[in-house]
Amino acid sequence: MSDSSTTKYLLDESQLSEAWYNVQADLPTPLPPPLHPGTGQPIGPEDLAPLFPMELIKQEVSQERYIEIPRAVQDVYRLWRPTPLYRARRLEKALDLPERVKIFYKYEGVNPSGSHKPNTAVPQAYYNKQEGTARITTETGAGQWGSSLAMACAFFGIDLKVYMVKISYAQKPYRRAMMETWGAECVPSPSMDTNAGRAILAADPDSTGSLGIAISEAVEDAATREDTKYSLGSVLNHVLMHQTVIGQEAIKQLEMADAEPDVIIGCAGGGSNFAGLVLPFMPAKFAGSKTRIVAVEPAACPTLTKGVFAYDFGDTAGMTPLLKMHTLGHTFMPAGIHAGGLRYHGMAPLVSHLYDLGYLEAQAVKQVAAFEAAITFARSEGIIPAPEPTHAIRVAIDEALLAKEAGEARTILFNLSGHGAVDMAAYDTFLSGSLQDYEHPDEAIEEAKTHIPVVG
Amino acid sequence: MSDSSTTKYLLDESQLSEAWYNVQADLPTPLPPPLHPGTGQPIGPEDLAPLFPMELIKQEVSQERYIEIPRAVQDVYRLWRPTPLYRARRLEKALDLPERVKIFYKYEGVNPSGSHKPNTAVPQAYYNKQEGTARITTETGAGQWGSSLAMACAFFGIDLKVYMVKISYAQKPYRRAMMETWGAECVPSPSMDTNAGRAILAADPDSTGSLGIAISEAVEDAATREDTKYSLGSVLNHVLMHQTVIGQEAIKQLEMADAEPDVIIGCAGGGSNFAGLVLPFMPAKFAGSKTRIVAVEPAACPTLTKGVFAYDFGDTAGMTPLLKMHTLGHTFMPAGIHAGGLRYHGMAPLVSHLYDLGYLEAQAVKQVAAFEAAITFARSEGIIPAPEPTHAIRVAIDEALLAKEAGEARTILFNLSGHGAVDMAAYDTFLSGSLQDYEHPDEAIEEAKTHIPVVG
Repeated sequence: MSDSSTTKYLLDESQLSEAWYNVQADLPTPLPPPLHPGTGQPIGPEDLAPLFPMELIKQEVSQERYIEIPRAVQDVYRLWRPTPLYRARRLEKALDLPERVKIFYKYEGVNPSGSHKPNTAVPQAYYNKQEGTARITTETGAGQWGSSLAMACAFFGIDLKVYMVKISYAQKPYRRAMMETWGAECVPSPSMDTNAGRAILAADPDSTGSLGIAISEAVEDAATREDTKYSLGSVLNHVLMHQTVIGQEAIKQLEMADAEPDVIIGCAGGGSNFAGLVLPFMPAKFAGSKTRIVAVEPAACPTLTKGVFAYDFGDTAGMTPLLKMHTLGHTFMPAGIHAGGLRYHGMAPLVSHLYDLGYLEAQAVKQVAAFEAAITFARSEGIIPAPEPTHAIRVAIDEALLAKEAGEARTILFNLSGHGAVDMAAYDTFLSGSLQDYEHPDEAIEEAKTHIPVVG
Repeated sequence: MSDSSTTKYLLDESQLSEAWYNVQADLPTPLPPPLHPGTGQPIGPEDLAPLFPMELIKQEVSQERYIEIPRAVQDVYRLWRPTPLYRARRLEKALDLPERVKIFYKYEGVNPSGSHKPNTAVPQAYYNKQEGTARITTETGAGQWGSSLAMACAFFGIDLKVYMVKISYAQKPYRRAMMETWGAECVPSPSMDTNAGRAILAADPDSTGSLGIAISEAVEDAATREDTKYSLGSVLNHVLMHQTVIGQEAIKQLEMADAEPDVIIGCAGGGSNFAGLVLPFMPAKFAGSKTRIVAVEPAACPTLTKGVFAYDFGDTAGMTPLLKMHTLGHTFMPAGIHAGGLRYHGMAPLVSHLYDLGYLEAQAVKQVAAFEAAITFARSEGIIPAPEPTHAIRVAIDEALLAKEAGEARTILFNLSGHGAVDMAAYDTFLSGSLQDYEHPDEAIEEAKTHIPVVG
């Protein structure tokens, strides 16, 4: 299948994954459990039942290595999966790389919402439908998650209300229009529709919102209505597990290309696209593989590189269970970078745990350097990346250039988690020369960390 | 390959077309030639040489049935081709169709610019590069063409200047940003950069521009600079021929699905996506096939249904050769519907000729009805269509419902020429209830026709 001009590695539909990979089965040490914020004790399924369908609660704590993907979910996946793996030959040429340095990328932008998010939106909508949920609430930042869940809820006939971070609601009207096109209701958060929103607005009528606030609103809405469940697009174990179709496909496609990655790269906000690519490579890593695995976060929200590994809330108002994760503190308000999907104060517990155990590396990248890489990529490979994966591209290019300079062979794989067609305002800002880098002063980060609750 | 749940028909890369299909070889009566606007005589290659590379001039008049696709062009096509053919099972279910009524669609939105336009942008950039062109000019309306050519010029290292219809330049900043991301220069038309633009602005400083004006500017720019050629995204024979990869693939994919279309539908502005799908079906049609072939145009620009078949200019200023085509008159200014790609006063000579010979049908559709169909489509199939193919979807749904009502079997194929991610403002207008239908009064259309030059 692979010759010197092959650029695209496609799998047949019959090679679609039949099960998600659950890394919990293989962890060298188990994941610290989520704790009840009132009692400080590990939470049980009954604590989560008001928010999630039981099947997802089971998946959250399952120790089974593989969990079967239901046929109805596979039928939707098959509308666009398996997704392509590309050898970035045109980028390699633009960088004047020697043949011993190779760049591959897995492209998750080929579905109608344009990112990896439907990989979990679809099963979440499915299990809710199975258990009789009539209505779902969720939050969204830049809108990739909200629009993906809107599409999934349209497929399964479920009502959806999306609390969209107010500044994104104003800046990204196209994403809101996508959600509405798929039939969802979308309101700017903080809103007057919840106690959490009203309290924030009473204290600060001009609040532009945050993911943490929007989560508080969506959780409150779901917790207080019998017909409604809540859905989260990242962070939780079951969400990351649904994304493992990415890495499972990539492994088969790299075999077609007769390639073994030396370094695997993904951008990381909540951690789901990163985990989706890298978790299926973890069994080899646990067994001693020398492949490096690099999470790339924005310098404006350096959860892994500057946060602490501690129990913290998932939301701003402190309504969620406490999760053991790398965090900057649940009140940390990241600067308004264009990669809205990477603006989260915490990091998925699974990713945090693997990082703490030393299996992962992390790098922080500034957005101007990320967009420079994205322009090089777009002009060679064609695809205009979403702002989030521009961070992964920056590190992939740096890795390639370092290997070239060092005279080493290196095979690089990164996740191109989505396209940027709905994010062109960010490119406009960059091309006009007015894009700014943001870094929070260390004192601000240290101050935010003082709000992390002290647990046991 | 086909069973009761198959929704996506994919071809292997090895089944990529190796040649474009040139319908001129099979026409029952030959195409009327383009005429020189000064002499009224058929133009020769030398007349076109200042504007186009010689290979494209040859293709424009070639009578060869197949023209080989160069390897370098195939290498770019392979980044996203072959494109999928879908059986619209979810839409069929939403419409409660019986099994005897089937809807298929060919989806051309899977490349980075999101429409069918790269099918010709890539070879046009390639042949220009081969013949030493350093710089290309073109016009664009809604921006699908300009952005596709920008991507193609980035691949082959050619400078590009795009004259973008001023009202679209203001309304579609994302499309402009895409062109700039791929390295093109984009200016609003009418501009002060050309005599044509300056003359329009002198007469009407507030002119919002039109495709006809932008063509005048791009042609003048190319004709007056030694290093520059001109490129057109529709209308001309070679452009339509490059698009035939669409229909050639569709024929193979329908075979996989064991299906034969009773009706084939495409939206038609200049005619290129329509021709790309239907021309490969014409040999069967010439041989007596009963398959109906329907061009769908907007009611606001009813070139086939209300225009005349006559020699007319391709641009507003009257700088282009005279083309025998269905036209509303080269000074006709179509209302500002959202399907910017369908706002052209004429229709490709090849499509016009086939329509005149009775091989094609035409229907005009209003935009509110088109967007209603698009919402039904998006909520069932997932993909949010560009405003242009919503017109094709409207007729596809109508055909399906008519067949259902009549108790007939019908297999319907339409071209989904692109996605609408960069056109969400149009959906926003529709969903907010403020989208208007436009129809020009018959008197206005008759007045415009009086400006068609009298030839021969």
